[in-house]
Amino acid sequence: MTHPEPAAVHAARPADPEPAAPDGVDTRTVRDARIVLGCLLEPGSAALHRLVTAHGPVEALDRLASGLESGPLAEAAALRLQGRPAVELAERLWERAARLGVRVITPESAEWPAQLADLRHISRDTSSTIDRDTFPPQSIWLRGPHPLGEVAGRSVALVGARANTVYGAHAAAELGYGLADRGWTVLSGGAYGIDAVAHRAALAAGGLTVAVLACGVDRPYPLSNSALFEQIAEEGLLISEWPPGTAPFKMRFLVRNRVIAALARGTVLVEAGARSGARQTLRRARELGRAAMAVPGPITSEMSVGCHEELRRGPDEPVRLVATVDQVLEEVGGIGDLAPVPRGAQQPLDALDPVERQLVDAVPRRGAAHAPEIAAEAGVSLRDALARLPSLALRGHLREHSGAYSRPRPARRP
Amino acid sequence: MTHPEPAAVHAARPADPEPAAPDGVDTRTVRDARIVLGCLLEPGSAALHRLVTAHGPVEALDRLASGLESGPLAEAAALRLQGRPAVELAERLWERAARLGVRVITPESAEWPAQLADLRHISRDTSSTIDRDTFPPQSIWLRGPHPLGEVAGRSVALVGARANTVYGAHAAAELGYGLADRGWTVLSGGAYGIDAVAHRAALAAGGLTVAVLACGVDRPYPLSNSALFEQIAEEGLLISEWPPGTAPFKMRFLVRNRVIAALARGTVLVEAGARSGARQTLRRARELGRAAMAVPGPITSEMSVGCHEELRRGPDEPVRLVATVDQVLEEVGGIGDLAPVPRGAQQPLDALDPVERQLVDAVPRRGAAHAPEIAAEAGVSLRDALARLPSLALRGHLREHSGAYSRPRPARRP
Repeated sequence: MTHPEPAAVHAARPADPEPAAPDGVDTRTVRDARIVLGCLLEPGSAALHRLVTAHGPVEALDRLASGLESGPLAEAAALRLQGRPAVELAERLWERAARLGVRVITPESAEWPAQLADLRHISRDTSSTIDRDTFPPQSIWLRGPHPLGEVAGRSVALVGARANTVYGAHAAAELGYGLADRGWTVLSGGAYGIDAVAHRAALAAGGLTVAVLACGVDRPYPLSNSALFEQIAEEGLLISEWPPGTAPFKMRFLVRNRVIAALARGTVLVEAGARSGARQTLRRARELGRAAMAVPGPITSEMSVGCHEELRRGPDEPVRLVATVDQVLEEVGGIGDLAPVPRGAQQPLDALDPVERQLVDAVPRRGAAHAPEIAAEAGVSLRDALARLPSLALRGHLREHSGAYSRPRPARRP
Repeated sequence: MTHPEPAAVHAARPADPEPAAPDGVDTRTVRDARIVLGCLLEPGSAALHRLVTAHGPVEALDRLASGLESGPLAEAAALRLQGRPAVELAERLWERAARLGVRVITPESAEWPAQLADLRHISRDTSSTIDRDTFPPQSIWLRGPHPLGEVAGRSVALVGARANTVYGAHAAAELGYGLADRGWTVLSGGAYGIDAVAHRAALAAGGLTVAVLACGVDRPYPLSNSALFEQIAEEGLLISEWPPGTAPFKMRFLVRNRVIAALARGTVLVEAGARSGARQTLRRARELGRAAMAVPGPITSEMSVGCHEELRRGPDEPVRLVATVDQVLEEVGGIGDLAPVPRGAQQPLDALDPVERQLVDAVPRRGAAHAPEIAAEAGVSLRDALARLPSLALRGHLREHSGAYSRPRPARRP
């Protein structure tokens, strides 16, 4: 198998943080094989994963291309190969990458995000192809100046409904901006609605954002987000498991979701209707043992029903409620990142213990009273009252005159 | 110990579902003792509970009144007794009840709610008097036509902030009305805000509501809820552990909260700031092993911060998110009361499996294609395509003409 001169590809890349492959043809051949496999077969396939695990990518491709393998996987690959040699397809893919100014990486690449390997060990429901075919990608196509592994190392996924509300947009913007501002990468799916708001908020904070697409990075979907995609390609990363030119089929969004969940340290469902596909991304995060979070909203909003359903899961399927950036970082951050507990304003009477509080309340609102009277009203012993009343007066909670206690100012009732 | 003729008391009550005490003086003496104890000492006291458990209410009162007991409990009781014989106080309490048209019950009464006994076994923090003095009441004063035990048997507590928002009021009204409409009693604390909305909503539904007060039932607090209290006294129940004339001290609200939590099968925190006292009622529900629930709200609302903090508790302190009456009833109801899971509208393509869905998407938007072409685009084997395409056409998801498949109508992208 041959490959184009790396320089030809590199020429099309504005910046290439990926180091040259270790010398020798093997690594390049392996990479070529993975890139072709990623083109011949839909990503995530359990059958392909088994084949590659058993034989390595090069032999796996050979077996599929030569007809040594039979069954649906081989047949599907053959339909796309159309009898051409695999090497020819590899060349075409490299050429296309160079022409489009995109790059492609595989697990052999220095910038490959190691955390994608967790998809091998995801807890899998094998009764549905969608839940069985959740294995790691063979290759990822990218547009943008940053090394993916580095960018995705400290990342949080913000996902949600396309048909968001103003409230959802506000929440996505707050979290996206705040996370980016604290140096975290915001991952999302590039869709309308919550996804787009999250990307934009991260960019507005001058931070990094990655759009994980379900179609070719050369034709990001939806079209109306084109200006956003161009900005992401310049300042962040557009990535996809599918080669350039691939159309966004419905099922591909669901297949793609596992990559969002696996790349990020945690996934936040910002706003979602009961049937939102974004709930599946949260499910993948749970299946991967990653932090799964959801933002609550008004119970009157259809677009928070999905979030609330997620938050109603039991302890076996934990989904944490998050309302602030601090709370998100508590879930994904290291030790010492505990979110401050909201406390509200301190009140002057907070420092009193319950008996002191009861004594202060037992002092008449007008006039003054002596300790026995106050103790009787409060329901405490005279001893307890005598031990506390002078201190309460000293601290200004009561006034004392000749052993009689009164209130320091016009009393306000609780 | 003597007591006034029951008839004198009964005359003041519009309806008295409480049966006469079993004949013999003992029960009446016991009840008188408890009523006096409930007047001499603040409710919930651990020391009083120990004394009554060891000696019974009559002897416990005798020991306190005669000076046989020493310590803070005896001293506090002595201050209120002011050297009068306990029997005189009992007579005065009965007379006052008759005059005010209220009644008083004790654990000996038929309408006493048995579930209050659970307060004996509450998991207790003994480091603070507020969390130590959480024992059952000795007596309860009531205004209203219904037997408390019956009314509270199927009850849910709705509690929350006094400074509610419009959103919180909406949520409280929805839940209060819905629960009452389904035959559940709505318990609350009679306060401004969420409490008042919950009571009003239950009354609007023609249902039962109980206000558990932290002051005498003859002077319900706050004054501005007076019209509401009058309606509750006519159609529901006003109840209190404190005898008529007692003022609402701050600490009494916190002591009272345990009774709300213990009477109800579950407690819902509807809206609460970070420091809301209503959070303590939810805590009591958890400590009692009762259903503890909270309503989510916008993360932008200060008045939902307390709810969200409760919902962020771990599985050891479970608080369930509830958004509908059904979900509340799932927590407190019997078997078979599972809330329906929100599903959203069904879509025509829902019936398709993932491979069918991928095939439908792979059919070109314009023109027609044959099975091998569609299979290649979809990334499935020809066998799988041939097995499914005719059925998809039969079901109307595709059109078939001479073995070529097209879309049935102008395609819409996902």
